[in-house]
Amino acid sequence: MTKKSTNSKLFTPGPTKIPGGVLNAVGKQVLHHRTPQFSEKVRHVQDEIGRLLTTHNDVLLFTCSGTGMMEAAVANLMTRGGKAVCLMNGVFGTRWRDICQVYGVEAVEYEVEWGKSHDPAKLDEILAQHPDAKAVFAIHSETSTGALNDIQALARVTAKHETAIVVDATSSVGVHAIRMDEWGVDVLVAGTQKAMMTPPGIAFVAINGNGWSLVNQSDLPKFYFDFTTTWKRLQQKGQTPYTPAVSLVYGLEVALEMMETEGWDEVYARHARMGEATRAAVTALGFGVLPEHPANGVTVAVCPEHIDANQIVRTLDDDFGVRVAGGQLTLSGQVFRIGHMGGIRERDLPMVIGALERGMIKLGHKIEPGTGLAALQQVLLKTD
Amino acid sequence: MTKKSTNSKLFTPGPTKIPGGVLNAVGKQVLHHRTPQFSEKVRHVQDEIGRLLTTHNDVLLFTCSGTGMMEAAVANLMTRGGKAVCLMNGVFGTRWRDICQVYGVEAVEYEVEWGKSHDPAKLDEILAQHPDAKAVFAIHSETSTGALNDIQALARVTAKHETAIVVDATSSVGVHAIRMDEWGVDVLVAGTQKAMMTPPGIAFVAINGNGWSLVNQSDLPKFYFDFTTTWKRLQQKGQTPYTPAVSLVYGLEVALEMMETEGWDEVYARHARMGEATRAAVTALGFGVLPEHPANGVTVAVCPEHIDANQIVRTLDDDFGVRVAGGQLTLSGQVFRIGHMGGIRERDLPMVIGALERGMIKLGHKIEPGTGLAALQQVLLKTD
Repeated sequence: MTKKSTNSKLFTPGPTKIPGGVLNAVGKQVLHHRTPQFSEKVRHVQDEIGRLLTTHNDVLLFTCSGTGMMEAAVANLMTRGGKAVCLMNGVFGTRWRDICQVYGVEAVEYEVEWGKSHDPAKLDEILAQHPDAKAVFAIHSETSTGALNDIQALARVTAKHETAIVVDATSSVGVHAIRMDEWGVDVLVAGTQKAMMTPPGIAFVAINGNGWSLVNQSDLPKFYFDFTTTWKRLQQKGQTPYTPAVSLVYGLEVALEMMETEGWDEVYARHARMGEATRAAVTALGFGVLPEHPANGVTVAVCPEHIDANQIVRTLDDDFGVRVAGGQLTLSGQVFRIGHMGGIRERDLPMVIGALERGMIKLGHKIEPGTGLAALQQVLLKTD
Repeated sequence: MTKKSTNSKLFTPGPTKIPGGVLNAVGKQVLHHRTPQFSEKVRHVQDEIGRLLTTHNDVLLFTCSGTGMMEAAVANLMTRGGKAVCLMNGVFGTRWRDICQVYGVEAVEYEVEWGKSHDPAKLDEILAQHPDAKAVFAIHSETSTGALNDIQALARVTAKHETAIVVDATSSVGVHAIRMDEWGVDVLVAGTQKAMMTPPGIAFVAINGNGWSLVNQSDLPKFYFDFTTTWKRLQQKGQTPYTPAVSLVYGLEVALEMMETEGWDEVYARHARMGEATRAAVTALGFGVLPEHPANGVTVAVCPEHIDANQIVRTLDDDFGVRVAGGQLTLSGQVFRIGHMGGIRERDLPMVIGALERGMIKLGHKIEPGTGLAALQQVLLKTD
């Protein structure tokens, strides 16, 4: 552990670099959570999230990680012995299955190779075979592989079968446009520590009428994560039933304002440019790009056989002050992941690609210095 | 909502005023949670909490409120259809019962009047009648009434019956000395937003061998709050299994260091002085003190019939820039609660008592200005 590495710049797929304005808000003296002043903040944040998701659905805030919110969705929507289809193509999709199993929910697994996305036609077949499935649990952007699912197309299929679709959007919200109402997404959960530029600890659920009717039928135990209790307290007083992470709500409010000021469409366009440029850079340096349909918040680079991805992660952190993420579970050693979302701007990308080139050279891999950076520039110049 | 009230000073029983050093830490750029640097912070915090509780037991951190941690205790320790005794004397004790019921755990209610504490002899009788009770769920300091339970005496009884005792210490940890190992407390849960001087969002559990043997028998569903998963990840890597509220862990580390620097015994002595002085002040102003055995972190003042407690809370906040808390549920309108813990020092107390006197006079109650302040000083002078 060198002195340098404690100051590494984060290019991880969450938590991400937090803008100074958000940090200032997070570091403010706390407000009491049972005051009209704090209620106003909660309502403001919930309204802004509604605009971000282009939805009129209810939005509920919780103090937890994205995983807590995934569990909350299962516990609030399902019944003991009920059936759900889990779309698995990485760590987080697999987590839907694991949570269902913990709660005694029968999980029909629709698994595709890690890096691939789910096929709406195949989901159609599966739902035809399982007409009693109450919900389909999906991941919009699978952070472990960088694969993006076509939620709009998947939601058309679930609507046809009158099955609810429940989407984790932790690493897509604020990266890719989400049209919750137009697409017919019934329930959407996300943590706010990625493109929403807030230090980790706050997550939310947005839920429509179909979602609420599942809640009304659910018999699984929940207390802290109870959607109904939370909704009631919000309606009555604009409060959360239990003490929320007040400081993080402050931060989230500022982050949402920053996004709205930049303009939602520009936010998505910026992420599209950053995704394309980073993929071009790693490709030029001889890496593969894992996902077939890549999400724009994270680039998952596949190493050629002679390169150990974890060695790259370590040298970037220890020697070049840049923190990227390694692969998870079976992908460990094979891939590294560069996060470029939220507080990361185009101007930041030469930092991570520059460090990557130097790291590769330090590790003895033969590359022409500047190759990755030039490819990066080519993409960025297209829209300058 | 006046401009003033957004700046009200917090004399609430949590969240409490956060010291500047803690806020500075909370507002720092986030570290990635999968790094040795962050693991070191997690381990440091867990060690410090162990010292605070004078225990060698495992300490596990979670991102949630105190209520989330109470639910975690039930879900991890109990079985479906199993039996527990819930000690109820206010909002939080009642919550133990409610959580047990949600999980299908049979809750034997030992309720005493709000403001009273639980009698170890009576618990002894109850456990004799219910030898199959696996756990007793108790509250150390019941924040809604200010009543302190004698956990050492209650734990002697549970040990005799070979029943586990599970204690919520959210508003006592850092106020009253807790000797977890010496007293034989099996499981202790707490949020860190009260005397632990951290913005809300982090809670912890400490658990001994008896607690772990209940965990091993438990069949209730849990994922985010799973103690075993959390313990394994901590052992392996000094990490939490899901993204924690990194910023709040920074803050908690600084807060714990501040407490250790002040000296644990001095921290407890300071809270004892603040509790005694505040009780003396409200008594001198004609209020009652609700609890029979008062905790030192919060003073729960009972209003004479002609005074509406909620009016006092409002005028202190709106007109005098001081935020105290009202009564909860059946106590609403009858009591107000002054928090004096964590970042609150003796020097701060004249602010809240001064505002209380001015508020009473503004509301037309006949008191001699300075009466409460003089009583406060009398107590503080004893140890100056």
